[in-house]
Amino acid sequence: MAVNIPEVSIRRLSTYLRCLRQARLRGQEWIQSSDLAESCGISGSLVRKDLSYFGEFGVRGKGYRVAELVRAIEGIIGINEPIRVVIVGAGNLGRALIHHLQEIPYFRVLAAFDRNRKKIGRKINGVEVFPIGEIKKFYREHYPQIAVLAIPPEGLQETVELLSRAGIKGILSFALQGIKTPPGVVISYVEIASQIEYLAYKIKKGSVA
Amino acid sequence: MAVNIPEVSIRRLSTYLRCLRQARLRGQEWIQSSDLAESCGISGSLVRKDLSYFGEFGVRGKGYRVAELVRAIEGIIGINEPIRVVIVGAGNLGRALIHHLQEIPYFRVLAAFDRNRKKIGRKINGVEVFPIGEIKKFYREHYPQIAVLAIPPEGLQETVELLSRAGIKGILSFALQGIKTPPGVVISYVEIASQIEYLAYKIKKGSVA
Repeated sequence: MAVNIPEVSIRRLSTYLRCLRQARLRGQEWIQSSDLAESCGISGSLVRKDLSYFGEFGVRGKGYRVAELVRAIEGIIGINEPIRVVIVGAGNLGRALIHHLQEIPYFRVLAAFDRNRKKIGRKINGVEVFPIGEIKKFYREHYPQIAVLAIPPEGLQETVELLSRAGIKGILSFALQGIKTPPGVVISYVEIASQIEYLAYKIKKGSVA
Repeated sequence: MAVNIPEVSIRRLSTYLRCLRQARLRGQEWIQSSDLAESCGISGSLVRKDLSYFGEFGVRGKGYRVAELVRAIEGIIGINEPIRVVIVGAGNLGRALIHHLQEIPYFRVLAAFDRNRKKIGRKINGVEVFPIGEIKKFYREHYPQIAVLAIPPEGLQETVELLSRAGIKGILSFALQGIKTPPGVVISYVEIASQIEYLAYKIKKGSVA
């Protein structure tokens, strides 16, 4: 299998994974590239281009075996062992994220962190809340890969620098505010507002009747 | 200005909007396409291609005037008036979403809906919780464009069909489960899990040192 898959294709692989896992949940054994394109909202030509890296798995007229393609993509993205995640902020969003991510077998939610003393020591669905000041110590013991930020915009930059100094390399943010990325860190944004705008655009265009 | 902007570019326009609004928040007046590319995590060549639709705004050596580009993109996506949103599910995620979306001036969170009698009639940051059974009546009076689903996977499909019958055309889902899309409806997924996977991949690849 080709190993030099371009960056933009890798980004889409995660989306294919979600759609393929959904198909697997529905008990679907085979999938055509056109069905994958439709369920992912990615153009058919892009899907075919991306899947050409997995060409050997396709069967003419039947498409791809769902379970096999899931395993192949997981192998490339590198989900051989669970991804270790911490949640920063134990408010409504933090609590929701803990429940959401615990549903996913290939994630481990190790801990939550907060500044609020009242929340420290509590457990949310079995996940303990630690003071944010202990993140460095926690990192040395548990090596979380990703921190998901569920905190208000105030103090966002400061928290990111704290996480970076602790050793965390990957950060997912729900905030609308931009973050100055510390060296050696990758930040990704969950674009809820952009997705709603896009939906509003699609409706306005009347692309759905 | 060109009006036939391809679908894939439109999707990226929403991302540019987020990054441009962040630049505006920072008080930045001009932006180069290369800076926009970096802050959005989109390749420079794609950004330049997309911005070619706005070619007339660019100034050699200075780039684009941030406020002008924001207005132009908003005009194309069609955010001339606030987008009317309802939240379905008044649990942790629903509450977090209400707070999050109320921060954004071009959204109006009209109401929340829930099945749980105990939650009906409550107000979350001023947003009232109605019984889900009243969505049809509510739609006829307030025409929400988008419903954001913050409910457990059980009953997801049923709820989507209820919303569709009420008249709602755009749905944003946080669930991992796929939804059979009713005719005339557009569904988009907030891919938290995919984004974490992508971050884990980037870290593993050592693309950040």
